[in-house]
Amino acid sequence: MKTTLSSETQTVTIDTEGPMIMIGEKINPTGRKRLAAAIKDGDYDYIVNLAVRQVEAGADVLDVNVGVPGIDEVKTMEEVVGVVTDAVEVPLCIDSPNHAAVAAGVAACKGRPLVNSVNGEEVSMQAVLPVVKEYDTAVIGLTLDEDGIPETAEGRFTVAAKIIERATSMGIPLESIVIDPLVLTVGADSNASRVTLDTIALVTKEYGVNINLGASNVSFGLPDRHTLNQAFLALGMGVGASCAITDVVKLAPTIRGADLLRGRDQHGMRYIKYFRKHAPKDD
Amino acid sequence: MKTTLSSETQTVTIDTEGPMIMIGEKINPTGRKRLAAAIKDGDYDYIVNLAVRQVEAGADVLDVNVGVPGIDEVKTMEEVVGVVTDAVEVPLCIDSPNHAAVAAGVAACKGRPLVNSVNGEEVSMQAVLPVVKEYDTAVIGLTLDEDGIPETAEGRFTVAAKIIERATSMGIPLESIVIDPLVLTVGADSNASRVTLDTIALVTKEYGVNINLGASNVSFGLPDRHTLNQAFLALGMGVGASCAITDVVKLAPTIRGADLLRGRDQHGMRYIKYFRKHAPKDD
Repeated sequence: MKTTLSSETQTVTIDTEGPMIMIGEKINPTGRKRLAAAIKDGDYDYIVNLAVRQVEAGADVLDVNVGVPGIDEVKTMEEVVGVVTDAVEVPLCIDSPNHAAVAAGVAACKGRPLVNSVNGEEVSMQAVLPVVKEYDTAVIGLTLDEDGIPETAEGRFTVAAKIIERATSMGIPLESIVIDPLVLTVGADSNASRVTLDTIALVTKEYGVNINLGASNVSFGLPDRHTLNQAFLALGMGVGASCAITDVVKLAPTIRGADLLRGRDQHGMRYIKYFRKHAPKDD
Repeated sequence: MKTTLSSETQTVTIDTEGPMIMIGEKINPTGRKRLAAAIKDGDYDYIVNLAVRQVEAGADVLDVNVGVPGIDEVKTMEEVVGVVTDAVEVPLCIDSPNHAAVAAGVAACKGRPLVNSVNGEEVSMQAVLPVVKEYDTAVIGLTLDEDGIPETAEGRFTVAAKIIERATSMGIPLESIVIDPLVLTVGADSNASRVTLDTIALVTKEYGVNINLGASNVSFGLPDRHTLNQAFLALGMGVGASCAITDVVKLAPTIRGADLLRGRDQHGMRYIKYFRKHAPKDD
């Protein structure tokens, strides 16, 4: 199944049978004081730099989140989307829990963005899905609802099914929906990643949709987080994840490598091209 | 399914439902000039050091291969098994294409070793399987035969089936057989790893046996080999590999991490224990 995103000049296809699409996570002030200050102060050079660096590292899409307390998020989202669009050519992922900010960001895009995100809460579906429908965007559906994040894969599948059924009943095409099964840290619950992987298998088997991994939470609080994040991406790709909102600078080699290893990089062209551009860490 | 190995003092179970078993690959002179010289000269201190370092890094089992041209491999295998057995307590994997050397190595073990390996060639099955039967060892079956290594997963499955049927018809229990689907470098054929992963899925579905990964060939000739080896291990574990003959010093963090992420490390005890003993590469 193919989910098409675009900017004014580029088209990116998230494809269940294709190579992994890398969505750069860094334009998000959560836990990033320097960026939060830059957003507040309108220091857009700093944001442009983050955008350029991620695209140079191989990001196919950039996530844009401007959620800093005390700002006008609607106006800021509009401005930052404009600034990022001027700086790089990749499609964007408009990331906010505020549906007015999502609508403003989507309207400011010159192509077809990905909306991040809707979830299974009634209030979320009622606020976000009409925007997705009106602007014909793609959307990430998070497997949580009024009762929180289900503990079992079956529970998360049920939430994914609810979002998919609601969206398609409104006329949003199945191809526009990307499910994110969520992952909590294995440091708190050693079954946390297993549940996520099993959810991916259930959702792809039933609906065949694209799957997003948010890859960095899984390792929270544990030693050697990078190795855990790498292994999680490979395991997730093995069961059917087709895009990830992730640290592209750090994780592109693993993603390009896992694509090659799962037979999705003919003649290793993408892997080799990546290393022609970026010096390898070792030989 | 459980494949039990033992030394005089330790039992190690390779278990399709359990954590990954790490078999240290370093006592093998192929491509290691210093070790080849040590084996030739009877410099057993060097070998003891390799054994101790791998066990300290977390190796559950050690592979022992003494294949240096121009030596008496039978006598040397016997001696090296004795030396390694005196130095460390883990079970051994007796690695030789020479069935007389295999028999000598097995006879010198004080527990139940893994024999590495039999393959689907008539001459190999006739030479090795009687030793496996006589000493009641476990054995690795490589998916190649008189026609070489099949290019397709179905072809490799057929060879695995031939080895399994022959061994069990001789009274060797299914639990004693570990299939190694082989992997060639993705540098030469970008479908090489995909075929291996698909073979694992076919063999485990039909026979439910344990699966060994020989993890280092896959990245041959490519940049950033370590990242590829890491991703290959995670992908292989995701589809059912239960042991690997590998560079434990380098790859233990990935293997312990992937076990945690696939829900095979309750409370993360093995992962955390590993990092209590070994400093993390980063946080």
